[in-house]
Amino acid sequence: MFQLHDQLRRDTFPICRMKLCLVQIMNDSQFPWLVLVPAAENLIEIADLNEKQRKLLINEIAQAQRVMKNVFGPDKLNTGALGNQVSQLHVHVIGRFHNDPCWPQPIWGKLPPKPYDQTTLRAIIAKLQNAFISRL
Amino acid sequence: MFQLHDQLRRDTFPICRMKLCLVQIMNDSQFPWLVLVPAAENLIEIADLNEKQRKLLINEIAQAQRVMKNVFGPDKLNTGALGNQVSQLHVHVIGRFHNDPCWPQPIWGKLPPKPYDQTTLRAIIAKLQNAFISRL
Repeated sequence: MFQLHDQLRRDTFPICRMKLCLVQIMNDSQFPWLVLVPAAENLIEIADLNEKQRKLLINEIAQAQRVMKNVFGPDKLNTGALGNQVSQLHVHVIGRFHNDPCWPQPIWGKLPPKPYDQTTLRAIIAKLQNAFISRL
Repeated sequence: MFQLHDQLRRDTFPICRMKLCLVQIMNDSQFPWLVLVPAAENLIEIADLNEKQRKLLINEIAQAQRVMKNVFGPDKLNTGALGNQVSQLHVHVIGRFHNDPCWPQPIWGKLPPKPYDQTTLRAIIAKLQNAFISRL
């Protein structure tokens, strides 16, 4: 049975479920940062997905990118499946700004996370849920 | 007309052309590192691709991953479209080893590249070309 990896569960909050992926937000207020987790067992690399799942994944990544642009207006998106710390397949979609604290470097492993305060988190989750529902 | 960005051209060597992407190898002997560049104009984010191109891209990423596993046997793959330095859409597929000099951190921007010597480069390009042709 599919289960979200403990570390991903601890570091993120749920936004919504798409056809293939759970969409989670990283609890780090320094960057708008989504994580898409294909909800199927024993996936580590994109090559482990079958053709139908691959098509769903790339379409869901594109949708998450449109949502990120619409909600946060970033200068650039960083999209990646690394899995060096947590091998369960998950795809980061991160909004980057020319004045963010890591630009132009990648953000993974750079700064300790600054968790959201609950009011801000609630507002951002609601905005993201609305954006995903409106199927941009 | 599509043109490979100057910096990508300087930093890489061509392996082959797939239906959508040029496949290039990064000239850094520290990591097996491919770069897939969709050969179409004005692409920055995955969301800029149409549905047909998205399907091709994810299938070509999966093929590049299979080639990397087959040729280099890495412990993990890192796959990502960042574009903070070069905005032209390009997808990194990098073979990672538990004993490589950056593990478990991402490798982008960490170490100055160590270019291949010509003999090694020629041999690796030939191996990769054969692997792509055999359509793993």
